[in-house]
Amino acid sequence: MLHALWSSAQTLNGRLHERIAMHDRELLVEAVKSVRAIGPLHKGLGLMTQAMTPEEIARQGWNLLSEDLSLPTAVLYQEKLLHNLNWMQKFIQTYGARLAPHGKTTMAPKLFAMQLKTGAWGITLATAHQTQVAYEHGVRRVLMANQLVGLQNMAKISSLLRDPDFDFFCLVDSAEHVAQLGSFFKSKGQRLQVLLELGMEDGRAGVRDALQLQSLLAELSRWKEQILLCGVEVYEGISQDESTIRDFLRSTVAVAKKVVGEGHVVRNPVILSGAGSAWYDVVAEIFSEADLGCPVEVVLRPGCYLTHDVGTYKSAQQRIKTNNPIARKMQSSLMPALQLWAYVHSIPERNKVIVGLGKRDAPFDSGLPTPALHVRRGSATPCATPAHWKLTRMMDQHAYLEIAEGDTIHVGDMIAFDISHPCLAFDKWRCLPVLDAQYRVVDVVETFF
Amino acid sequence: MLHALWSSAQTLNGRLHERIAMHDRELLVEAVKSVRAIGPLHKGLGLMTQAMTPEEIARQGWNLLSEDLSLPTAVLYQEKLLHNLNWMQKFIQTYGARLAPHGKTTMAPKLFAMQLKTGAWGITLATAHQTQVAYEHGVRRVLMANQLVGLQNMAKISSLLRDPDFDFFCLVDSAEHVAQLGSFFKSKGQRLQVLLELGMEDGRAGVRDALQLQSLLAELSRWKEQILLCGVEVYEGISQDESTIRDFLRSTVAVAKKVVGEGHVVRNPVILSGAGSAWYDVVAEIFSEADLGCPVEVVLRPGCYLTHDVGTYKSAQQRIKTNNPIARKMQSSLMPALQLWAYVHSIPERNKVIVGLGKRDAPFDSGLPTPALHVRRGSATPCATPAHWKLTRMMDQHAYLEIAEGDTIHVGDMIAFDISHPCLAFDKWRCLPVLDAQYRVVDVVETFF
Repeated sequence: MLHALWSSAQTLNGRLHERIAMHDRELLVEAVKSVRAIGPLHKGLGLMTQAMTPEEIARQGWNLLSEDLSLPTAVLYQEKLLHNLNWMQKFIQTYGARLAPHGKTTMAPKLFAMQLKTGAWGITLATAHQTQVAYEHGVRRVLMANQLVGLQNMAKISSLLRDPDFDFFCLVDSAEHVAQLGSFFKSKGQRLQVLLELGMEDGRAGVRDALQLQSLLAELSRWKEQILLCGVEVYEGISQDESTIRDFLRSTVAVAKKVVGEGHVVRNPVILSGAGSAWYDVVAEIFSEADLGCPVEVVLRPGCYLTHDVGTYKSAQQRIKTNNPIARKMQSSLMPALQLWAYVHSIPERNKVIVGLGKRDAPFDSGLPTPALHVRRGSATPCATPAHWKLTRMMDQHAYLEIAEGDTIHVGDMIAFDISHPCLAFDKWRCLPVLDAQYRVVDVVETFF
Repeated sequence: MLHALWSSAQTLNGRLHERIAMHDRELLVEAVKSVRAIGPLHKGLGLMTQAMTPEEIARQGWNLLSEDLSLPTAVLYQEKLLHNLNWMQKFIQTYGARLAPHGKTTMAPKLFAMQLKTGAWGITLATAHQTQVAYEHGVRRVLMANQLVGLQNMAKISSLLRDPDFDFFCLVDSAEHVAQLGSFFKSKGQRLQVLLELGMEDGRAGVRDALQLQSLLAELSRWKEQILLCGVEVYEGISQDESTIRDFLRSTVAVAKKVVGEGHVVRNPVILSGAGSAWYDVVAEIFSEADLGCPVEVVLRPGCYLTHDVGTYKSAQQRIKTNNPIARKMQSSLMPALQLWAYVHSIPERNKVIVGLGKRDAPFDSGLPTPALHVRRGSATPCATPAHWKLTRMMDQHAYLEIAEGDTIHVGDMIAFDISHPCLAFDKWRCLPVLDAQYRVVDVVETFF
């Protein structure tokens, strides 16, 4: 739609310029504004009678505690977001590594821009579509941590590569795939930068053994003009066992050294990339010490750190806080920066509350959302929820909250929930209000899933 | 965004009309086109260099089998969709009941319009936001099968009710809630039509016992000018046991008769509403025979029938085909009309294939997607997948497909997957191409989640 608006605004403006005096810039301003405007048909915002830019929305004076937002809503807490943004950048930099945050988590170009401004090397993405979204919003370096497969996906990337300022990498893990890429990009007269993906046994994609590697490298040598091997990549987060992960990372370094030594890698420095949101400390430690016999650029790709959570990644971060010397020295950690707010709809049984929050609004694949705050109807004061409150079930649009008989709770009360798995929280929302510490809406973040 | 475009187009056109001769209608056409245009930043479509209307997209000659779409994609099969549309309308009409399809499933106004055109009484929705989306796209009768809770949600509905042609119903299940609605709509000088929700023990929302009912009716009598009780509503789909459901529906009829008999219901005919997508036959049977001592409008609300599935609702439909005399007589049944298509990315182990399809693209809460068709790279001929192929795991953007050693499958092959739980398939996609029987793209359906 952004592009729809943009192109229609451009068309209109093109025609206007034919007919109207050049000094009439007002119309152009109007057109540019329309490109950035947020329509009134999104869930989780306040009452809008017309489209508004994020800046106009910020000037509405909406406050979540005053019930200015339509619930359910997913909100980002600005201070915590900025804290996490800086924390991870600092952590990664301390290792002399580069941060390429995984953008698939948020798919929010405004957050990509914040990450790049804070020092990120580039943005990691998972698909050609996601890459296109990032590019159209100004991102000029993308590590697509995935195979680029299929005619239209290759065509999308080919189209972006016409821009000489666009620096793009994707993964290869089979000779068959290299041949497909080689043939396609040869037909376009273009070159494609790739990283060799290594995988662990029982893992996801990635080369498993010497035979696969040999045939891939042989195929690469047939497409030297089209396919440029720039480094080695892994995703260690498939495993949850630290010693398995350490072994895998060390063997990755050994394979990288061999591949580099044999002259297959054409980039200097060589890229060595890994790290999801759970083991970035271990990858930083091992990769930053890797000796490949040449300059190395270590590129790490956590994505969930920006909002963090109170589930999977909270546990991971506790391990990091305990074990990692740099995290210990930093004396602060990541903070959960995204909450879901919903209303109490009904209290049909003494210990059961029905809340207006469902699978359409919340992640549920790594544990259900956790009650965090309770605001009684009309009170505007959030209190911590009792420890015994918990969600027991979620349907498409409802959740069951278990309480104790006699707990004070009413229809119309607001409850905030912490989450587990940020990726599956963001993709439920096209717009997320950003709140300051007083719960005032100070910005809106749009997503492009 | 639709509204953003619309209002920006209106603003621009307003100014143009001040400056340019009235006969220059070309610009207006351009603006209207821009409102209906689909931008090039959506996943699952073909390569677009600019925004296009659905009609323009249909004229591109895209064919899924020719790899004209960027995969993964979620497609709707037009013939099957139309078959299901007509099948359900006919089934419900045979019982003399009204169909108010649950729109939360698709949140696709184009499909709402098809449902209404085929004879639907109205559209069922779950939230104030969904109601607003439907209204803005022309829907003028909504049964919101949920409590209307919270200041901005009430304000949204209040704003739509300024249109005297908008016929709206929502649910009440507690005195506390009735008082909140009464107070709000009194302050607006408006009336709100409600249905009394009855619930089953261990169920979701809804009045459970005589005491709750009595206090609710007493509260209703205090707000007679604002809150108009129009009927009785249930959601039976909480249970999976037919005899429990039949008992619940019969007791619902008895309570409805009592409430009507005591003069609490002001609408004639009285609305009696129930039915999710699994038990609509049983609800149709029992409610259509209900004698409330007055004219009754039975309103049934299945939503998943439009695309159907091969999981939860396939099982439900098999029961209906076997047990229901009208379904048996119709000699046809619902057909799965939505599939997900994705590429083979990697075959890293002999019996493991990595497919470019993840939790971002597919429902996974009622069983993982099921492989259905296999198109070898370059062949353009879909074959049924071997029965032993199955998904064993899904991550955010990838799926693990288990095959047998020696099966013929290659990187770049396309695989179609059937799904279980349509609601959680639609909400992963902002645009779904509609295909004819030759896999040509003949339309695009947009969603508004």
